[in-house]
Amino acid sequence: MRLALGVAYRGTAYHGWQSQPDGCTVQDHLEKALSRFAVAPIQTLCAGRTDTGVHGLNQVVHFDTDRDREPFSWVRGTNRYLPDDIAVQWCSPVSDDFHARNLARGRRYAYIVVESPVRPSIEKGSVGWTFRPLEAEAMRRAAAHLIGEHDFSAFRSSDCQALSPVKLMREISIVRHGAYWRFDFEAVAFLHHMIRNLMGCLIAVGTGTRPSDWVAEVLASRRRERAAPTFAADGLYFLGPRYDAHHGLPTRTAGFDWLPGGWQR
Amino acid sequence: MRLALGVAYRGTAYHGWQSQPDGCTVQDHLEKALSRFAVAPIQTLCAGRTDTGVHGLNQVVHFDTDRDREPFSWVRGTNRYLPDDIAVQWCSPVSDDFHARNLARGRRYAYIVVESPVRPSIEKGSVGWTFRPLEAEAMRRAAAHLIGEHDFSAFRSSDCQALSPVKLMREISIVRHGAYWRFDFEAVAFLHHMIRNLMGCLIAVGTGTRPSDWVAEVLASRRRERAAPTFAADGLYFLGPRYDAHHGLPTRTAGFDWLPGGWQR
Repeated sequence: MRLALGVAYRGTAYHGWQSQPDGCTVQDHLEKALSRFAVAPIQTLCAGRTDTGVHGLNQVVHFDTDRDREPFSWVRGTNRYLPDDIAVQWCSPVSDDFHARNLARGRRYAYIVVESPVRPSIEKGSVGWTFRPLEAEAMRRAAAHLIGEHDFSAFRSSDCQALSPVKLMREISIVRHGAYWRFDFEAVAFLHHMIRNLMGCLIAVGTGTRPSDWVAEVLASRRRERAAPTFAADGLYFLGPRYDAHHGLPTRTAGFDWLPGGWQR
Repeated sequence: MRLALGVAYRGTAYHGWQSQPDGCTVQDHLEKALSRFAVAPIQTLCAGRTDTGVHGLNQVVHFDTDRDREPFSWVRGTNRYLPDDIAVQWCSPVSDDFHARNLARGRRYAYIVVESPVRPSIEKGSVGWTFRPLEAEAMRRAAAHLIGEHDFSAFRSSDCQALSPVKLMREISIVRHGAYWRFDFEAVAFLHHMIRNLMGCLIAVGTGTRPSDWVAEVLASRRRERAAPTFAADGLYFLGPRYDAHHGLPTRTAGFDWLPGGWQR
């Protein structure tokens, strides 16, 4: 029997999603909790491996089990064994050929930046920060160069394990909400550090350090050293994958309406 | 020369505001940072001592110094020496008879509770939680009993050092925003644990465990053991004090618009 779960987590305390020998990742904690609840070893496969410090709102995983329990029992029972900054949000039975990674038609991320002369405090870990004012139109012109299928090597970390640097960027939207800027990215898939590297460049354009067209030059160069430094992970949220509707999986989780602009645009 | 500061902090990591021998309070960190920046010992006095785990949005302090520096230099310079979850928001010269505690005409707090079958995760420490649905009108009827001047002994912790248990509650407002409930409290002053004890009772009424009038009985009893258990500190925010307008102090800080319902009502 195959089950899918939606998982929310605060990434600040973890070395990202992907299981590691030190055991200090979200996947490690999730699999340990699932295995305790099921009283059997359980391995999961996720829709999008998030990096250290990146938060997940509706990460989706699938796993196989012969334990026959009510979906909400999986939610409540697993949450009992999870750290208090990770929680399963929903559980749904899926067909045996469902695959959280391979069937995802796209992935959505949001990056929240606060523009303020004073650095974040209460929001430490939850938002990025710029003390220089940002200019929306300059950033939108820069972002327009990134839409479509491109070789994103200039925005790829040296640790990236993706087979190809060519990715299809469907949309980048940049909207201001009071003191907050929200950047939404949707692509079929992303390279390692890609959004944080793109954010570094968009912020350089927004503050007037670089012109909008410079982003097109960096993209065309395919050379990492031409781009701006990697932006902090603090404000980055994996909103989740998109699947075909016939799988019937929730596209959002409850709450989190505080995200500037709401959970989804 | 007397200066006033507005300070924002996430209370999760600290043993409250008030200085303690272990040095692990917000006041300890603030005074250490101010003293380093001023290169002279500085002691502060605050508008409202917050408890362990309670967040501050616009805590106000005053202190005396003979260092002549620009107000924003105090902000930036002090923040350099503060932990990353505490930050001075503004600095304003005040007259020598300004007093952060004695001149405060009132204090405002907000408590955020998420109503969800699943416990908080990303929001751990930032919101309280109820898995039982809350009923607004029942809670509002209960809250109406608390408005005005009363002996609040039933909602006072045994550690409370206030001279009198009689306090004037000006307003309690209870508003739902999606999955979130926001409770706003304004009083001239509060007793130790008073809001968390009131919250325990309002939630007991909201879930139907107790009738609305029970809160009036608890209040009249003046006995702590009659009230509900103290609610978690996680969702409690000190919004700040109110002063007469002629002091010219900021009544809010930048950002924090994500608080459901906005920074202020």
